[in-house]
Amino acid sequence: MPTFVPGPAADRVSRKIPKVEPMSDVLGADTTLADLPLRDDLRGRSPYGAPQLDVSVRLNTNENPYPPPRDLVDDVTAAVQEAATALHRYPDRDARALRADLAAYLTGATGVPLAMENVWAANGSNEVLQQILQAFGGPGRTALGFEPSYSMHPILSAGTRTDWVPAPRRDDFSLDGRQAARIVAEKQPSVVFVTSPNNPTGQSVSQDDLRAILDAAPGVVVVDEAYAEFSARPSAVGLIEEYPAKVIVSRTMSKAFAFAGGRLGYLAAAPAVIDALLLVRLPYHLSVVTQAAARAALRHAAATLGSVRALIDERERVVRALREMGFSPVPSDANFVLFGRFGDAHRAWQRYLDADVLIRDVGIPGHLRVTIGTPEENDAFLAASKVVSEEITQ
Amino acid sequence: MPTFVPGPAADRVSRKIPKVEPMSDVLGADTTLADLPLRDDLRGRSPYGAPQLDVSVRLNTNENPYPPPRDLVDDVTAAVQEAATALHRYPDRDARALRADLAAYLTGATGVPLAMENVWAANGSNEVLQQILQAFGGPGRTALGFEPSYSMHPILSAGTRTDWVPAPRRDDFSLDGRQAARIVAEKQPSVVFVTSPNNPTGQSVSQDDLRAILDAAPGVVVVDEAYAEFSARPSAVGLIEEYPAKVIVSRTMSKAFAFAGGRLGYLAAAPAVIDALLLVRLPYHLSVVTQAAARAALRHAAATLGSVRALIDERERVVRALREMGFSPVPSDANFVLFGRFGDAHRAWQRYLDADVLIRDVGIPGHLRVTIGTPEENDAFLAASKVVSEEITQ
Repeated sequence: MPTFVPGPAADRVSRKIPKVEPMSDVLGADTTLADLPLRDDLRGRSPYGAPQLDVSVRLNTNENPYPPPRDLVDDVTAAVQEAATALHRYPDRDARALRADLAAYLTGATGVPLAMENVWAANGSNEVLQQILQAFGGPGRTALGFEPSYSMHPILSAGTRTDWVPAPRRDDFSLDGRQAARIVAEKQPSVVFVTSPNNPTGQSVSQDDLRAILDAAPGVVVVDEAYAEFSARPSAVGLIEEYPAKVIVSRTMSKAFAFAGGRLGYLAAAPAVIDALLLVRLPYHLSVVTQAAARAALRHAAATLGSVRALIDERERVVRALREMGFSPVPSDANFVLFGRFGDAHRAWQRYLDADVLIRDVGIPGHLRVTIGTPEENDAFLAASKVVSEEITQ
Repeated sequence: MPTFVPGPAADRVSRKIPKVEPMSDVLGADTTLADLPLRDDLRGRSPYGAPQLDVSVRLNTNENPYPPPRDLVDDVTAAVQEAATALHRYPDRDARALRADLAAYLTGATGVPLAMENVWAANGSNEVLQQILQAFGGPGRTALGFEPSYSMHPILSAGTRTDWVPAPRRDDFSLDGRQAARIVAEKQPSVVFVTSPNNPTGQSVSQDDLRAILDAAPGVVVVDEAYAEFSARPSAVGLIEEYPAKVIVSRTMSKAFAFAGGRLGYLAAAPAVIDALLLVRLPYHLSVVTQAAARAALRHAAATLGSVRALIDERERVVRALREMGFSPVPSDANFVLFGRFGDAHRAWQRYLDADVLIRDVGIPGHLRVTIGTPEENDAFLAASKVVSEEITQ
């Protein structure tokens, strides 16, 4: 274990967040947000996003800690070089080659035979989810999710003027399928979000529970599988045949594929769902560069996904170590762990930051979320945890 | 002039549009759009987009016909190679370096001193415009535009549930500033779109006319300058100081920059406008690859924009030749020309296609739009035009 030297307990956040410089010399800088004809429902809101701070150990956004292997970088580079010769032309609006590659990957990963027509892709799963809400949600309709869950679901709902209906989980953050189905039947939402594994709590949802929710749902059910590669549970793509007019499975290359910077989200569903999304997608939304880079990265799926096994092993090690220190980690099928309990979670988050370890205060009382990093990063996190645990028990 | 051999007048479109194959073996293919809980206002609509057909001469989407120069491709490739080593990490959410480069370019191009804080960027100007409508339009609000104009303005308004208010132009398609201001004062739209040069008609709008509209507007005025580099008129960025809470100038790298495949749209405005857009933008919307490629392309601005002069000269040659053949081309400040008059514009469009020349039927009775291509492409277009003109006068 590396020596752990905690930093001063001073307010380091304010030191680390880049200073906003005075803009008196910037054109139009005297005009403020209050002077603009902004929508009323946006007034007073803050932009989404974890602080992007300059620290040694960044375990706050569930990125894959392993950089892309050399031959993946080379392949992406060669693919972009080829694509760049046609930069003056618009890309394939429907990204058919990329969608075929994603379908082939997902078929291999899940055993469910999927074709290009079953897959849709966009700039990150956020854009995929926004398009789903534009087609199936929107003003006068509701979207329902089981909280705490991925905080972008209500934000995207607000952005598409879809009313958000929060529904509860059990006290241990797992999903009670029977209760969930009952609430869906009662609330009749147009869109249901089920995150499996759930972010930020980590548990997966069983096929039986999904079936109960699908049977109760009057509209579409989006199973957000952003972290599916870290879980041994079968994917919900296996339910497309049974519920073709209801189930939409969203995925991302950001996590297991170590492609967060490439911004490639996708979904699998019946072809008619993709027909619906064509009505709301921005034309030419995926650049030739993104399409080429993502296809190149997919050719290295086997190698990239090799890191997944290592991360799962590290996750189990971190969970065991946290438990031994007296923390209560929530069982996780993903590449992060929610753990507690803290009397003051935000103060504990600050103590980690003082130790140059950035984790995430996701707003769940008494809990913090840590992304699983490299063994060295996890060691630094565990060393900081030891200090924090001793402070707590003093 | 190349020999022009018109093809058979048969229905070649149906031959050229890729056949949709039967999908009986595709998972969930028996479910149709009618089976889905789609929003009512989307029912019966068709996806936006020009046909992507396999023809020799493509003059239908206002692309720049000149491929990127070799050293631009090399620089984009090197930039992406460097960026690809960090693909496992999320990009800079606020794209600060790219925005600083865009500000520097726009300052040089317009003489108006702009800082990074004045500029915002997204995946194509469509995403920029969508974000503007999410922040300043939306349900219960209206957007107004002067038709015929860029057809995505009403489509993006519908996508954000902003009511669309069409307003007229003069019979010659130019904008009557005084009438425009009067209509804006009467209709009180939250968002006004002024396209300058206007797509698909080609004329620019004077600063005086813009001032009249800005004085009358209760909300924001989006001056869509996608084709500004082809025009000698001063940019509306010169109005930001005077109307900081109202004017938003949108631009794109798709046209003059020959970067349509790279998908990079941007805008200039007072910093508070960008603060507003931060509330609605999808987090991490611009990939590391897009940011790196666009920055590399911007370093070659001088060379790329060299093609603009050549295209302007070709535009004038095409306009003269069309006029000599008896057509009525509309004066254009852009890289396209709207021309007529046809008794049956769609039938004429088909005749061009039969000659392997794809132009655009933009839905304006009696008119078609042609993008200015290379001299050889323009020759092929003019040769086809000669045949069409002789058919018309027979």
